[in-house]
Amino acid sequence: MYNLYTMQRSGNSYKVRLALALLDVPYRAIEIDILQGESRTPEFLAKNPNGQVPLLEVADGRYLAESNAILWYVAIGTPLAPENRLDRADAMQWMFFEQHALEPNIGAAYFWLSLVRGGRELHSYSLEDWMERGYRALQVMENHLATRDYFAAGQLTVADIALFGYTHLAEQCDYDLSGFPAVRAWLGRIEREPRFVAMNQLPPAEAVAATAAAG
Amino acid sequence: MYNLYTMQRSGNSYKVRLALALLDVPYRAIEIDILQGESRTPEFLAKNPNGQVPLLEVADGRYLAESNAILWYVAIGTPLAPENRLDRADAMQWMFFEQHALEPNIGAAYFWLSLVRGGRELHSYSLEDWMERGYRALQVMENHLATRDYFAAGQLTVADIALFGYTHLAEQCDYDLSGFPAVRAWLGRIEREPRFVAMNQLPPAEAVAATAAAG
Repeated sequence: MYNLYTMQRSGNSYKVRLALALLDVPYRAIEIDILQGESRTPEFLAKNPNGQVPLLEVADGRYLAESNAILWYVAIGTPLAPENRLDRADAMQWMFFEQHALEPNIGAAYFWLSLVRGGRELHSYSLEDWMERGYRALQVMENHLATRDYFAAGQLTVADIALFGYTHLAEQCDYDLSGFPAVRAWLGRIEREPRFVAMNQLPPAEAVAATAAAG
Repeated sequence: MYNLYTMQRSGNSYKVRLALALLDVPYRAIEIDILQGESRTPEFLAKNPNGQVPLLEVADGRYLAESNAILWYVAIGTPLAPENRLDRADAMQWMFFEQHALEPNIGAAYFWLSLVRGGRELHSYSLEDWMERGYRALQVMENHLATRDYFAAGQLTVADIALFGYTHLAEQCDYDLSGFPAVRAWLGRIEREPRFVAMNQLPPAEAVAATAAAG
């Protein structure tokens, strides 16, 4: 069973929890509160020198970081990972887009506006940039989804899960999605997936119990 | 033969040119000067709604964007793309790291300090962040390379090419690499690859000629 180092309120961690839920793959969740410095301890840095969650233990003492790389790793061989070379490249294209165009903007706004007390004042000089670039990314997504149900391969893939992570948090951090009907319809489509879990939903009870026992 | 929309001075474009050179794959280069607005014309936006280079025409009228997705696409089935599931995940991990930790910082510093006249003054408020976060990314790379020749799979992969793109430009935009001996040794290792091409080297004559004919 996978050990997943995760923070409940992290959009990047949620992507992995959502994928594992949709795939019905069991895992143990180990909560790491980055706001309490738990990702900067010598013990955690030995696992991930970049000091970030999510982090997946893929084999005894072997760890994989970066939410989108983890998504590909757990999805290979499942319907979430397209097999066709060009479909796969399309999905990957959207996941790299997510990491440089969406996550650094909506993710930063979410972190400083929703998680850190006083963050709005601390980063007021950056907020305008995040909003402008976040809206630009949302517009690219809106145009793509205007004629499609999903981002790649004509089906739900890891690309949708990657993009869902922070897009579904946009309204919590000042973005107004009323001008993005195709994005909102796509968010709803994912939320109606049979094994969908919301971000604030805790991992399955057995996983939490196992964590407590392990901790 | 691939059509590659590229900007000579773009680090993201260079990654793809470098991979194609190392793989000895012929291509036609179509130069798009983003500083002259050539990536924002209706004609180009019809090809890539995100308005960025590099862009690879993978089939008649079908385009693939995002440098790192393109790297995977052209490298599948070659020694640059590891076959093993975990090696591949490791390579992907470093490529997502590149897009959120390295490229937004060294890439931004390069763009505004080296390419845009007056950029240093225009973005003086961001420069300190770019330097700090860029150095943090370089330190993660330095620690990893201290005991390894390459980033993933114990061999040269697309992850190295992705990271080379902006790391080799760091010294042109205020970063001092003297404290990063493992990174410098790795840069040299890549530069000594048999079919290596430098960033300012033009695409092969036949490609340029073909472009001129096509244009």
